[in-house]
Amino acid sequence: MKKDAHTEDLMTNLPNLSNAYASDLLPSKDGKDLTKCFLLQVVNILLHYIEKTFDVKSKILDFHHPHQLLEGLDGFDLELSDHPEPLEQLLVDCTDTLKYGVKTGHPRYFNQLSSGLDVIGLAGEWLTATANTNMFTYEIAPVFTVMETVLLKKMCDIIGWGETEADGIFSPGGSISNLYGILVARYKKYPEIKTKGMTSLPCIILFVSEQGHYSVKKAAAILGIGTDHVIEVKCDERGKMIPAELEKNILQAKRKGQTPFCVAATAGSTVFGAFDPLHDIADICKVHRLWMHVDAAWGGGLLLSRNHSYKLSGIERADSVTWNPHKLMGVPLQCSAVLVREKGLLAACNQMRARYLFQPDKLYNVDYDTGDKAIQCGRHVDSFKLWLMWKAKGTYGFEAQINRYMELAKYLYKVLKKKDNFKLVFDAEPEFTNVCFWYFPPRLKHIPKGFERDQELHKIAPKIKAQMIEEGTALISYQPCGDRVNFFRMVFSNPATRQADVDYLLDEIQRLGKDL
Amino acid sequence: MKKDAHTEDLMTNLPNLSNAYASDLLPSKDGKDLTKCFLLQVVNILLHYIEKTFDVKSKILDFHHPHQLLEGLDGFDLELSDHPEPLEQLLVDCTDTLKYGVKTGHPRYFNQLSSGLDVIGLAGEWLTATANTNMFTYEIAPVFTVMETVLLKKMCDIIGWGETEADGIFSPGGSISNLYGILVARYKKYPEIKTKGMTSLPCIILFVSEQGHYSVKKAAAILGIGTDHVIEVKCDERGKMIPAELEKNILQAKRKGQTPFCVAATAGSTVFGAFDPLHDIADICKVHRLWMHVDAAWGGGLLLSRNHSYKLSGIERADSVTWNPHKLMGVPLQCSAVLVREKGLLAACNQMRARYLFQPDKLYNVDYDTGDKAIQCGRHVDSFKLWLMWKAKGTYGFEAQINRYMELAKYLYKVLKKKDNFKLVFDAEPEFTNVCFWYFPPRLKHIPKGFERDQELHKIAPKIKAQMIEEGTALISYQPCGDRVNFFRMVFSNPATRQADVDYLLDEIQRLGKDL
Repeated sequence: MKKDAHTEDLMTNLPNLSNAYASDLLPSKDGKDLTKCFLLQVVNILLHYIEKTFDVKSKILDFHHPHQLLEGLDGFDLELSDHPEPLEQLLVDCTDTLKYGVKTGHPRYFNQLSSGLDVIGLAGEWLTATANTNMFTYEIAPVFTVMETVLLKKMCDIIGWGETEADGIFSPGGSISNLYGILVARYKKYPEIKTKGMTSLPCIILFVSEQGHYSVKKAAAILGIGTDHVIEVKCDERGKMIPAELEKNILQAKRKGQTPFCVAATAGSTVFGAFDPLHDIADICKVHRLWMHVDAAWGGGLLLSRNHSYKLSGIERADSVTWNPHKLMGVPLQCSAVLVREKGLLAACNQMRARYLFQPDKLYNVDYDTGDKAIQCGRHVDSFKLWLMWKAKGTYGFEAQINRYMELAKYLYKVLKKKDNFKLVFDAEPEFTNVCFWYFPPRLKHIPKGFERDQELHKIAPKIKAQMIEEGTALISYQPCGDRVNFFRMVFSNPATRQADVDYLLDEIQRLGKDL
Repeated sequence: MKKDAHTEDLMTNLPNLSNAYASDLLPSKDGKDLTKCFLLQVVNILLHYIEKTFDVKSKILDFHHPHQLLEGLDGFDLELSDHPEPLEQLLVDCTDTLKYGVKTGHPRYFNQLSSGLDVIGLAGEWLTATANTNMFTYEIAPVFTVMETVLLKKMCDIIGWGETEADGIFSPGGSISNLYGILVARYKKYPEIKTKGMTSLPCIILFVSEQGHYSVKKAAAILGIGTDHVIEVKCDERGKMIPAELEKNILQAKRKGQTPFCVAATAGSTVFGAFDPLHDIADICKVHRLWMHVDAAWGGGLLLSRNHSYKLSGIERADSVTWNPHKLMGVPLQCSAVLVREKGLLAACNQMRARYLFQPDKLYNVDYDTGDKAIQCGRHVDSFKLWLMWKAKGTYGFEAQINRYMELAKYLYKVLKKKDNFKLVFDAEPEFTNVCFWYFPPRLKHIPKGFERDQELHKIAPKIKAQMIEEGTALISYQPCGDRVNFFRMVFSNPATRQADVDYLLDEIQRLGKDL
C-alpha cells in the first residue's frame, strides 16, 4: 500500500485553525487543504478516543449532572450563538463532547444490550456518513439498496425461509421493527384498514408475554389498537411464555367477543434473556389462525451460532421477525431489520406511490426502489456497516464472537454460584448472555428473608450503580421485575470484555456495596 | 497545534493489510497500531472521495443496473460468505462502494431536497459513530441528550414559542415527525385512545392540502385512522391550501357526522415549495378547535432567514411542527425534529415507563431521560452534528447559506423566463428554492398545445433524466402533478452549487433533449 505524501505533508505543516472558519472549508474555493487538515485533526481526536475506549484502565465516564453541562464546564459551552466559532474551537468542542460522554465500547461497559465498538462497523459508519445518501430509491443509493437486498435475503435464509421469497426492510430500531410486524399482521387480516381505519373494526387483540418488550404495547398505542388490547401472557419461572396460558388467554378473548389477530413472541427477552417456546406458539397460532411475530431484536444474532441456534427453533414458522444486528452482532447503532415471510405484504401495506419519488418511467428495474415499503420516506443507510462487518468477519466470525459471550455468561454464572454474598435470580445455567443477580451486603445477611429485607435489598443496586457512575469504573444495569426487588442484569455483547473484567465487576460491586 | 509523530510514523511504515483480519484489530491484544492504520486508510479513501465530490469535473455517478451490481463488477462481490476477507480487500470494497454510488454533495446534484455534503456535519457524524451511544437515557448519552434539549429549545424559540415551555424530540425523518404530530393531536383530543384504541371512537378526520407530503396519509394508515379520512384540500395555482376550501371541507365532514380533529398545513411543499397561509389556517383551527400541525420539514430552515421567514408567518400559532435540519440546513441525514407547543404531551402520549430502562431511583434528574417520549426505544444520536454545525456557522451562517439558495432560485427563474424552449410551471418569482419547468425540444414546438403534445412532452423529462444518469453529468428530479405532465423540479439546498452549475444544467438539458 502506498503512503500518501500529501497527507504527511499536511500533518507536518498544519494550517492555522484558530482563525479559520467553516466557511473556509470545501466547497469554498481553495478549501481543499484546510478541509483535509480539519478532518484529519478530527480523526486524530477520534483515534485517541478509540484507544482510550479499549484501555481498561481509562474511566468509562466522567460524570456530571445535567445542570452542570447546561451551565457550561471549563469552556465547554453548549449554548448556540448567532456567530460562528473558529475551527480550532470546534476541535476543542469535539474533545469535550467525548470527554463528558460515556465510552460504550469500554471492556467494562455492560449497561445495555448494545455495547462495544466494532472497528469495521465504525469504518462503515464513517463511509456511510461521507456518502450521505438516502435509501428511498435505487437512483440515489444503488449500492446500498442492493446491499440491503443481499443482507435481507441472507437473514431470511438464516431464519429458515430459504424456500420462499421473503421480504423485509431496515428500520430505525427494534421498536419500529416490532411496529412493522404488528402493522403488517393487522393489514393481512384487514386490508381495508389502510383506507377505512379501525373505527369499523371489531376489537382486535394482540398477545405478548409479560416479559416481552414494552415496544409491543407502544406499537398498540400508536396503531390505535390500544394497550388494553395487548394481553400479557404469563411466563414460567425462567421468563418464557407459557403456551397453555396463551391458549387460555386467546379463548378468553374470543368468549368476550374480541378478535385475536397476532401473537408477538419473544426470542431473547430484555431482562432475563428468555426464549419463548416458538414451536408451541406456532402450533397455537396455526389453530387460531393468528399472525406470529417474533421479537428477536436481542436474540436474533444467536441464529449465527451452530451451538445455540436451536434455542430459536420454530422461528422459521413465524410470519414476521424483528432482528437487531446492533445488539448481539455488535453493529453500530442503528441497525435493525424487520423480516416478513410473505413477499409483497410490506409494500401493499405501506405504499402510497408518491409520483415525485417513485416514478414508474425510470431506466432501471424499479423493484429496487424499495422506499415505498417503509413507513418512512427518507431513510438512513443502515445496511453498509453490517455488510462490511459481514465481509470482514464472515458468518463464522460472528459465530465465534457470540459463542464467546455465551462462555462468559456461563463463567459468570459459575462464579456467582460459588459466592456467598451474591444470589442468582435463577439458579440455572444461562440460556443466553443475560445473568441476573443480587448482591447482599453483610448487614443484610442478618435480616431474615421477608418484606423488611427486600425493602433494604431494593435500595442496594441503585446505590452501587450510582457510585459506579460517579467513579466511572464500570456500568451495569439493574431493575426490579414482578415481585423481585432491584437486581443487577449482566449482559454480554461487548467484544472487548474478558474474564478478568467479569471478575473485576464482582469485586467492584463488593467494594462499593459492602458497607451499605 | 502539534503534529502527531506517531500518526506520521504509521503512515510511513504501513503494516501489511493483505494478511491482517478484523480479528487482529482492537480489542485484540496488540491491535492498536493496526487499528489506527486501518482507520487512517479508510479516511484516506473518504478524503479522496470528498475531494472528488466537490470537483465539478468529476462524474456524479457511474451508473449500473441492479442486476449488474448483484452479479458482481470487477471483483466487487456483494455476496456474504462464511469466511472473513482480509483488511486490504475491505479497503477495496470501500473504494468500490463509493465508486458505484452517487455523489450527493456534487455541485450538480439537485435530485432531492437533501443534498450537499457539509464538512462540519460530516465530522459530527464521524464523532457520533465513534461515540456509538443511544439517546434513551442521560445515563449513557449525557452530552447528547443535553445538546438535544438545547437545540429543541432553540428551534422552539425560532418558531416563536419562546414564552411557553415547549417540547420536542428528534426522530428518524420527516415522515415519522409528521406521524408524531398527528399521534399527539389524536391523544390530546382523545387521551383514552392510548389504552382503549380507536374502535370506540367516532370517525375522526384529518386535513392536508393536495400538495402536502404523502407521509400524512401514510401516518393515517399506520395510526388506524385510514387514508379515506384524510381530506385533501384544494390548492390555488401556486400550490397553497385555499382556506375557504378547508373551511368547506370541515363543514362537509361535520355534516356527515364525522369529527375533524387536525389540520396538517404545509410550509414548503415538496414539489412546488409552496407555503400554506398559516394565519388563515390557524384562524380556522381556532374556530373549529382543531389541532394545527405544520409540516415544515422542507421549509423550516427558512425561519433562519430574516429576509424570508415571513413566509412562515403564523407557524407560532401551530400546536406541532415538523422541521428537518437535514433538508434546507444541510445537516447530514438523518436529522428531523418534531416540536410540540404543549410541554408534557409527548411524554403522556408515548411513555410506557419500562422499569429496566427508566428507573426512577437514579442519581441525577431523570427529566433528562427523554427516551420515553419517543415512539422508539433505542434512538440514534442525531443532535450532535446539528449542534456542531450551529457552533461552526452560527445562526447567521445558516442564514447566509439559505439566502444564497434563494438568490440562485431567483436567478434560475429569470434565466428560464428568457429562454424560448423552456417554460415555467408558474410564471411568478419563486417563493422558495423550488423552480418547476418543462423543456420543449424543437420538434414539440410545432405540435399545437393539447393532448397530443402533452403526451409527447410527458416522455421528455424521463428520457433526459435517463441520459443524465447514464452520463453522470447532473441529477435533477421530475414528476407529473395533477393535470400537468412530467416537468423538472429544480431545488437549491446544495452549498456547492454556483450560478455556473445552473447554467450548465440548462445547457445539459438542451444538449440531451434537443433531438428527442
